[in-house]
Amino acid sequence: MNVAVIGLGLIGGSLLRALAARGHHVTGYDVSEATRHAAAEAAAEPGADGLGWRVAADIPDAVADAELVVLAVPLPALPVVTADLAGFTGLITDVTSVKGPVRDLLKGRRYVGGHPMAGKESSSFLASDPDLFDGCAWVLCLEPGETELDDWLRLAALYTSIGARVVPATADEHDEAVARISHVPHLLAAALSGLIEGNPLAGALAAGSFRDGTRVAATRAELIAAMCGGNAAAVRRVLAEVLDRLEACDAELASPDPVAALTSSLRRPGELRRAWPVAGGVTVRVDREAGALLNLGRAGGWLTDAGPDLVGQRPGTDRNDS
Amino acid sequence: MNVAVIGLGLIGGSLLRALAARGHHVTGYDVSEATRHAAAEAAAEPGADGLGWRVAADIPDAVADAELVVLAVPLPALPVVTADLAGFTGLITDVTSVKGPVRDLLKGRRYVGGHPMAGKESSSFLASDPDLFDGCAWVLCLEPGETELDDWLRLAALYTSIGARVVPATADEHDEAVARISHVPHLLAAALSGLIEGNPLAGALAAGSFRDGTRVAATRAELIAAMCGGNAAAVRRVLAEVLDRLEACDAELASPDPVAALTSSLRRPGELRRAWPVAGGVTVRVDREAGALLNLGRAGGWLTDAGPDLVGQRPGTDRNDS
Repeated sequence: MNVAVIGLGLIGGSLLRALAARGHHVTGYDVSEATRHAAAEAAAEPGADGLGWRVAADIPDAVADAELVVLAVPLPALPVVTADLAGFTGLITDVTSVKGPVRDLLKGRRYVGGHPMAGKESSSFLASDPDLFDGCAWVLCLEPGETELDDWLRLAALYTSIGARVVPATADEHDEAVARISHVPHLLAAALSGLIEGNPLAGALAAGSFRDGTRVAATRAELIAAMCGGNAAAVRRVLAEVLDRLEACDAELASPDPVAALTSSLRRPGELRRAWPVAGGVTVRVDREAGALLNLGRAGGWLTDAGPDLVGQRPGTDRNDS
Repeated sequence: MNVAVIGLGLIGGSLLRALAARGHHVTGYDVSEATRHAAAEAAAEPGADGLGWRVAADIPDAVADAELVVLAVPLPALPVVTADLAGFTGLITDVTSVKGPVRDLLKGRRYVGGHPMAGKESSSFLASDPDLFDGCAWVLCLEPGETELDDWLRLAALYTSIGARVVPATADEHDEAVARISHVPHLLAAALSGLIEGNPLAGALAAGSFRDGTRVAATRAELIAAMCGGNAAAVRRVLAEVLDRLEACDAELASPDPVAALTSSLRRPGELRRAWPVAGGVTVRVDREAGALLNLGRAGGWLTDAGPDLVGQRPGTDRNDS
């Protein structure tokens, strides 16, 4: 496949490497000259994966021969980059962490939204890694009645080939889910980090629970703000749930028997965490049909193979085994 | 030194092993017969550290020859165990995660409160490890005008000898600090865990930020409840700060430019997290005096050697070096 990757940060750079390693013709472009230079140097290295890649000087050059364009730029840069793609008629996808706004932005284009659930604190090309997507969940958005199923399946086949678990979901389901498991966790991590302000004793005593609870607060403020601000409605809904829960905690702490009250309310979150991530699962055949694919995603499942037969995996045990 | 460790869970068991490995005469006791059995078996193993240890059948037997008794039982068990020590006139310390209530409970006894900032999700003797305290911060409480400085320094010497960084603090300073860096983080982790309830899609997409942000929610509900409930006043004060911060987040998300508003408010927490833990530091001599020791703790420092000369470490760079 002939693929253009626009934006060569951690995700775009890793995708460039992963696709090149599988023999695809890949062209990369980044708005930063330094990043383009780094990507060109890496392509020329003797140890470069597979056939290497081409680094283009501008977006029209990058997409000239492409069948697929992957937009791997931050959300705020998408409108400008999309305008540069006015003449491109092939398939477009993206990797941004919010899907509703991008779906609206690309209305009328041949577009399938995507979001790989992969990341590191470092977001530059220098941190890119061809194995970044191995085993990672990659959401591909499927809007019943809108998304072209063949386009969706082509992308699903491409991403399963680099080891990703392709998760079908609507843009709205995606945005709600990532608010729960990524955006709000970033805001809580930042709130926790702030608690050592002006208290060196607390900073010196901080150990595992602080380290892990605040790890993602080290992410650049601009990136967290773009994720959360771009998904503001869903983030506010989920944040309201967290505020309710923490206010209930406060009431439990103020109750006559705080230990008993907290023990009772903390039991379920503990069970949920110990049951996560789901171990095992069953292999399932999935119909080539939007509803069946979305049901797989809603059940916590994903596609592992998008060849002629669609093969997925979903949590649970196979009752036919017994 | 002749030391009795009462309670052989993760902390008590690890201390038993660490002290035995340094040649101290150590006796252990646990209320659980299965744990006593496991500890006796481990002492008899060919690979047991140092001289091994003795496992006593009851508390009077355990403390009969002890100069020091370490109470390593959960907070709710302390009143009962303390009553069993009515006839013991030596030095008593503890390892519980709240210090104000224990200080009040042991008023009038020869007591120095302690709290090693070490833990694992697993809290049983089977997880115990003689190296658990290597490099870990161990708070020793010092109440000006109350704590016997010689007792405090004996304990400081014992714990620095097993690799701990001994942090001087009052019980109130300790309780406020641990609410910030441990108790409230546990409550936030639980609130985050609850966000995947009934949402298998979210659970399937959850990756690093959810994994780390919720790790300590897997701790047994009883343990989190005992920590937080035992320190309810400080936890409520700190929780109120977090609620204020998250409500401000919500207002930023609702503002005309949420990305700009969040970028600005997330900058400082990011700086704090990237600057933590403090790298480097300067070696300092510390006066054998409560005020000087407490000032070291308040500056984020600790004792590394409590021999005839008190040697500490505190954050910062030595201006005399330049």
